[in-house]
Amino acid sequence: MKVSVATYGSHSALQILRGAKDEGLKAVLLCPRSRHRLYERFRLADELILVEGVEDLLREDVQSNLNSMGSILVPHGTIISDVDIKKFVKDFKVPIFGNRELLIWESDRELKEMLLKKAGIEVPRAFSSPDEVDCPVIVKLPGAEGGRGYFIASGREDLIKKLTETGVRMNRGLYIQEYVVGVTVYPHFFYSPLKGEVELLGVDRRYETNVDSLGRIPASDQLNLGVQPTYEVVGNIPLVLRESMLEKFFDIAERFVEATKRLVPPGMIGPFCIEAICRTPDDIVVFEFSARIVAGTNLFINGSPYSYLLYGEGMSMGRRIAKEIRLAYETSELEKVVT
Amino acid sequence: MKVSVATYGSHSALQILRGAKDEGLKAVLLCPRSRHRLYERFRLADELILVEGVEDLLREDVQSNLNSMGSILVPHGTIISDVDIKKFVKDFKVPIFGNRELLIWESDRELKEMLLKKAGIEVPRAFSSPDEVDCPVIVKLPGAEGGRGYFIASGREDLIKKLTETGVRMNRGLYIQEYVVGVTVYPHFFYSPLKGEVELLGVDRRYETNVDSLGRIPASDQLNLGVQPTYEVVGNIPLVLRESMLEKFFDIAERFVEATKRLVPPGMIGPFCIEAICRTPDDIVVFEFSARIVAGTNLFINGSPYSYLLYGEGMSMGRRIAKEIRLAYETSELEKVVT
Amino acid sequence: MKVSVATYGSHSALQILRGAKDEGLKAVLLCPRSRHRLYERFRLADELILVEGVEDLLREDVQSNLNSMGSILVPHGTIISDVDIKKFVKDFKVPIFGNRELLIWESDRELKEMLLKKAGIEVPRAFSSPDEVDCPVIVKLPGAEGGRGYFIASGREDLIKKLTETGVRMNRGLYIQEYVVGVTVYPHFFYSPLKGEVELLGVDRRYETNVDSLGRIPASDQLNLGVQPTYEVVGNIPLVLRESMLEKFFDIAERFVEATKRLVPPGMIGPFCIEAICRTPDDIVVFEFSARIVAGTNLFINGSPYSYLLYGEGMSMGRRIAKEIRLAYETSELEKVVT
Repeated sequence: MKVSVATYGSHSALQILRGAKDEGLKAVLLCPRSRHRLYERFRLADELILVEGVEDLLREDVQSNLNSMGSILVPHGTIISDVDIKKFVKDFKVPIFGNRELLIWESDRELKEMLLKKAGIEVPRAFSSPDEVDCPVIVKLPGAEGGRGYFIASGREDLIKKLTETGVRMNRGLYIQEYVVGVTVYPHFFYSPLKGEVELLGVDRRYETNVDSLGRIPASDQLNLGVQPTYEVVGNIPLVLRESMLEKFFDIAERFVEATKRLVPPGMIGPFCIEAICRTPDDIVVFEFSARIVAGTNLFINGSPYSYLLYGEGMSMGRRIAKEIRLAYETSELEKVVT
Repeated sequence: MKVSVATYGSHSALQILRGAKDEGLKAVLLCPRSRHRLYERFRLADELILVEGVEDLLREDVQSNLNSMGSILVPHGTIISDVDIKKFVKDFKVPIFGNRELLIWESDRELKEMLLKKAGIEVPRAFSSPDEVDCPVIVKLPGAEGGRGYFIASGREDLIKKLTETGVRMNRGLYIQEYVVGVTVYPHFFYSPLKGEVELLGVDRRYETNVDSLGRIPASDQLNLGVQPTYEVVGNIPLVLRESMLEKFFDIAERFVEATKRLVPPGMIGPFCIEAICRTPDDIVVFEFSARIVAGTNLFINGSPYSYLLYGEGMSMGRRIAKEIRLAYETSELEKVVT
Repeated sequence: MKVSVATYGSHSALQILRGAKDEGLKAVLLCPRSRHRLYERFRLADELILVEGVEDLLREDVQSNLNSMGSILVPHGTIISDVDIKKFVKDFKVPIFGNRELLIWESDRELKEMLLKKAGIEVPRAFSSPDEVDCPVIVKLPGAEGGRGYFIASGREDLIKKLTETGVRMNRGLYIQEYVVGVTVYPHFFYSPLKGEVELLGVDRRYETNVDSLGRIPASDQLNLGVQPTYEVVGNIPLVLRESMLEKFFDIAERFVEATKRLVPPGMIGPFCIEAICRTPDDIVVFEFSARIVAGTNLFINGSPYSYLLYGEGMSMGRRIAKEIRLAYETSELEKVVT
């Protein structure tokens, strides 16, 4: 078959490669030299192209190599976070599974928030000045990696006190956001342009350091230790959602797809994730989205409760992507799923 | 085959429908009009009867429709919580998988506690007056939805102080219960009247808002924010139990089954859940039971570690129910599994 | 086939038995009389030898019975914790899957720490006197079962104050260890002497009482209740790791295998677990290892995301062990996998 699935060695590459093979497609890995051994262990790449880093995807020889194999790149979080995404979207001359323009929106906090709002989805409030604050907030410092230096304030006065103490200046980079108290859920959706349908394939919550270790430290010790929370993803934990909440999440997912069609045509294609906090089962706030495969899907490489309902055993998100590519190829509709 | 599996569209309906189909039985969905689209997405219902709400199950035309299809209703949590259960048990003239009388016991706090005690199972202590309190307690307000307004007190004095502060009157509705410190576990059992055996098919813990978000808020911020815990189920997280604890849980499960046979003949039939807190691996307190399928089984629609031991791949609780119905039908013993 | 898989009825025996059967090997259970009913429920033992307790494995008739069936014992945590391991390793005259000498190292805190250090793996610092302490520490009392009596101190002064208050004397048994703030992860590895390769088959985190219940108690109530944490394993929760962290964990796993070859020849054989805390995704501290199957693998009796990548469906650690035994038997290399 003159079509293959390519991805970069990180994030959810193992799943994407395996999914391609399970659907009978050739699996191509753009493998960073430093991780050659890791990916060799799993023996999943039919073709392996060694690169120095993700920026090498823009090298002309790499691109022509990919094009000669009829490769379609499946983008993931590392591509969003580790390249100049605007440049990548413009200069990468290999078909991408999904809407490449959306990757830019995902990587820009303002565009992201606007897209969610235009979709009519509730997002946490943002405050442009400490004086406006009238609820608990989380303060995000510009360039703070892994949430280092983020802090919580219980209200306006507490915020002003903490800003004064830490000597942080209010400037354009400082982001003051409503702190929503509730549990996080990350449902994994797939929008099929071939079927015109949204599918739910899994749900997880993130496992973050050190914030998910705080609960194991008694309150009195926490006060002694003066631990500051950080929010770096180490892994994921599987979940299922209360069945009566599914309708609401599908509604959010469809509003999101609809908004992308209007604002970023041709709109959403393939996997996305609605990153939400539930104040109550009926009161859901969306603080982020991902417009591509998320790492939480790695929990379900061997299938999920939801994918079993739709497809029986072994349908991961990576395989669902490969399936859509295969079906589009077989019906000569590849242009519907790549950009 | 002149037998079909019916359920109401909520809670664990997707699993129940899929289980029926996996066992070769017709799957009938009583679908609330507002969730028609949700259930259509999964294409699992062979027959779909639109209703306005769960109370429509008592409509005569709905019942005769079900009876004409040889339907057996699989009850779940929504039926317990959203209908007048006594009326339902009396007036619903369609066979129910399980012991319909037990649904009444499950929905009544006093009967429930009595059943557990008569089974010789340790339950948290309950106090009829604040003056009796000699340990940490959790206070549950009458009609408090989702645990809103529940609060913890460290002992008698703290309780009296908090009751005075909040102006809550001690009355018949106020429920003062020992607060057991320990982790929660929810093992999912199935009692087969055909085999005369209890099976363990999975274990989960609940994921509740907002109480499962508290651990991620540093203690100092919790004190500032003054967050009050609520206990509304948003989802479930899979577990396995320490193997040396299984014997104890089977013992509890069998005592429970035994007690139901004595007190609520013909006793337990099918799925149930023992909702427990482990102070230590050997010191287990049971604070609730469910005498029907629980939503935590949705984690294992594609099979669980335990169901794999017994049945190999893909045996969910929903499928186990359908399997029991099919076997009972084939051996003309349906009267053993329905009431 | 003149080879069978034997194990003792506890810990991960169900998985080990099932794995043997899935690989076509005879499954032999050394079953404590008190758990006869438990293991009968699962019908997994082809041969069942009733014993009073784990120390009966040293009985001559038991050993000759095992040897007559060509049994290879798969050791697990109960054998480490419940017998005099030095005596067992010396006197048990039945082949053991794995390196029996390593079981001694695992059960000795000093040898264990030395092995990790010699492998060049970062471990939490240990302090021989309170005066040396310059960071948060956790203090472990000698013989404290299940972490009862463990406590945290924020530094030297806090430690001295707490030691004085509790009247605990500093002696050889008291173990003062750096308290590393971060999330715990338990990756399950398998080292195949036949392939000369390390495989990753799953990841979990433990679910411990009561420490994993603390996060659900509001900070203000924790302060009132004065809850002391305990660390007794009740179960396990599945995880996947961030893909970019896998390289680092494989590196640690291979250093570990390498060090065992040097220090405890013939070195690691079969399953092991690296028990780690992640301060950040890049900063990983290893506080323990297990040189045999861990109970967290029970999560993946029906397969894991990682085992699916390597083997497709249904490859548990128990089955992986049986597979290695079968392959070694078929190629007459059993001596490579047993000691």
